[in-house]
Amino acid sequence: MKRDIDHLMNERGLGAAIVLQGEHMSPTFRYLTGPRAHLKGIVVWRPGQKPYLVHHAMERDSAAATGFALGDYGSLGWMKLLEDEGSQIKATARLIQKVLDTLGIRGRVLVDGVVQLGWYYHVLNHLREMKPDLEIVEDQDPGLFELARSTKDPDEVKTVRTVASVCERAYARIREIIQGARLEGKKLRDGEGPVTIGRLRREVRRVFFEAGLVEPHGNIIAMGRDAGVPHNEGNDKDVLEEGRPIVVDLYPAQENGGYYFDVTRTYCVGRAPQELKELHTLVHDAVRTTVDRLAVGTPGRVYQESVCDLFESHGHRTIRQDERVEEGYVHGLGHGIGLEVHERPRLSAASNPDLILPGSLFTVEPGLYYPSRGLGVRIEDVIYAHHDGSFENLTHVPYELEIAPA
Amino acid sequence: MKRDIDHLMNERGLGAAIVLQGEHMSPTFRYLTGPRAHLKGIVVWRPGQKPYLVHHAMERDSAAATGFALGDYGSLGWMKLLEDEGSQIKATARLIQKVLDTLGIRGRVLVDGVVQLGWYYHVLNHLREMKPDLEIVEDQDPGLFELARSTKDPDEVKTVRTVASVCERAYARIREIIQGARLEGKKLRDGEGPVTIGRLRREVRRVFFEAGLVEPHGNIIAMGRDAGVPHNEGNDKDVLEEGRPIVVDLYPAQENGGYYFDVTRTYCVGRAPQELKELHTLVHDAVRTTVDRLAVGTPGRVYQESVCDLFESHGHRTIRQDERVEEGYVHGLGHGIGLEVHERPRLSAASNPDLILPGSLFTVEPGLYYPSRGLGVRIEDVIYAHHDGSFENLTHVPYELEIAPA
Repeated sequence: MKRDIDHLMNERGLGAAIVLQGEHMSPTFRYLTGPRAHLKGIVVWRPGQKPYLVHHAMERDSAAATGFALGDYGSLGWMKLLEDEGSQIKATARLIQKVLDTLGIRGRVLVDGVVQLGWYYHVLNHLREMKPDLEIVEDQDPGLFELARSTKDPDEVKTVRTVASVCERAYARIREIIQGARLEGKKLRDGEGPVTIGRLRREVRRVFFEAGLVEPHGNIIAMGRDAGVPHNEGNDKDVLEEGRPIVVDLYPAQENGGYYFDVTRTYCVGRAPQELKELHTLVHDAVRTTVDRLAVGTPGRVYQESVCDLFESHGHRTIRQDERVEEGYVHGLGHGIGLEVHERPRLSAASNPDLILPGSLFTVEPGLYYPSRGLGVRIEDVIYAHHDGSFENLTHVPYELEIAPA
Repeated sequence: MKRDIDHLMNERGLGAAIVLQGEHMSPTFRYLTGPRAHLKGIVVWRPGQKPYLVHHAMERDSAAATGFALGDYGSLGWMKLLEDEGSQIKATARLIQKVLDTLGIRGRVLVDGVVQLGWYYHVLNHLREMKPDLEIVEDQDPGLFELARSTKDPDEVKTVRTVASVCERAYARIREIIQGARLEGKKLRDGEGPVTIGRLRREVRRVFFEAGLVEPHGNIIAMGRDAGVPHNEGNDKDVLEEGRPIVVDLYPAQENGGYYFDVTRTYCVGRAPQELKELHTLVHDAVRTTVDRLAVGTPGRVYQESVCDLFESHGHRTIRQDERVEEGYVHGLGHGIGLEVHERPRLSAASNPDLILPGSLFTVEPGLYYPSRGLGVRIEDVIYAHHDGSFENLTHVPYELEIAPA
């Protein structure tokens, strides 16, 4: 949570953090400054002090709304620095140096921000040359802001619930379409014609649009063999067919860089073949047993190990046995969500230091994949760790595999 | 254009470029790999050779669609590297080293990618330690990929035209709403109630939704004093009022990180006060004279200087006179657009090396701002420099300031 930042900085011996936002959404910058459509610049965060923001005069209204101490590029002499240095990269380094010197910052500082690396790598190198009393610290794992952001306060969870409820509507819409259609041979159609993956995607998109959500990373609605390749987003032209798995993985966010939700269900039009039913039952068991065993303070990797145990005991190969595995259980068990779709804590096994903490908000998403047999199943819920140590499943979407057409 | 990359690399003495994409859209990565919803990884680009892509096995279908030479994290032993190095940052450096060594790359390389700086700054430092024969080059200004991306080929311009035509519809919709409403006193209303800024924003959003566009950076629909602060996005609750300027600045993009367009018009419900009309006429003159004078090979800053001359000759203060100016002409004249809303060439004055080149696609967007008097006017068109040296205005939106209600 935001209130953890200062004591984490003190614990890690950091005098300040420099958080950048350029052309692209920088989640930590957004976390610190709040949701504002137009605000680029540099936040300097110091424990126990009012944050300082460098901003453009054109964005002075958004800047003022942060409540931070402000300095605009013009007043800081940006154009003069550009002329003197003859390079945007050096002028940016000089500007940061000027701000840090004015604020009396030296020693160990942290840098954060999603920006163009080829440019800012050299900005930081010049900054170190210009200001030898500065040390740009390599952060611990998880990083300070990753860790602070990974535990959500009640306001954040309230916001996430609103996104969750829209996801429920999107899944309800998909089930309605299938239930309202009929099979012609093996293929599904309704009054609008063949029911395709693209049709489902359009309907989902409309549900999100009506609710003010966007899909910055798209979505996955993939059938059969495509459902067996976890990040295959599916083929819009595929007509839904009886008996084949359809993986529906939706991860919309609020507009303007807000909060994400992330749910997956696997559906089958009509009766599912025995093999698919068994996979689905086992994956559902993996979700249930994971959620039942959750405990605050436990490393996230423990749950991945348990799921690998479960799947291996049923004869499935897992990523634990061979990281190159493409059939069986091929990915990590889950990840935090928030202002990014993938945050901390991770529930994967390899070199993962993350703990489940009070306030953690994360997915549990086991899956089994057999693309060579046209099969893929994934089920994904989002779980919140309350501050009293109890867990709540925020995902209210039915698990049923089989959906009967009309 | 993409075909310029190799000779620019040779010109700049670069043996390879490393282009990263993590959680966030990295425009150069997308430029090189094409539009794919799911594809993270590392592209290694070498002049005259097939590009190499490091990808996740889960994304093997998207990876295969690039046509690049492929290596997936699993086959490259990612989890072993993580265990050996005990840190994601060091393991990433080790992986890049391994790939570069396998490809026989040493010497001067360029890095590009929109990623978390606090993390990748240290990845690059470790990489330099691990691989002393590598030099991570500080690029020229404009950067190599900025320069290649700044000149658009016919396919790109064709795509941009489709986005432009949707913008035309959005502006038509705004005019229709105003024309279909009536004044009650000074305020505009219609059958749905008071016509607010929020109402216009919702209508615009719907036009974009129907056409498959998104607004990753929101938009600006701002009235009166807010119109006088260029990046104030406007207040949804404001009811449109007779005689006040409304700046409408829309910059949607295709979904999944595609191409942008960017248009601004300034409207006034009913009759405009003389002062507003004069500002609008002068800003419109600035657009026209700029477009008339465009010539390939000319530095972008030349046009900013001309517009400053024009505005100053009419008694307006400009950013050229004082970079802290908040009333008058307070920003640069324009910017390239493409996979980002702000690209090269820039048409601003300060330390700007950019030239207008065959294939340049850029905005011309002068404005005059008097927030203290409730006034702001901006007009923005997008211009394409054809390869024969002629210029085409891609913006087919009427310039009229005054829109008469019913």
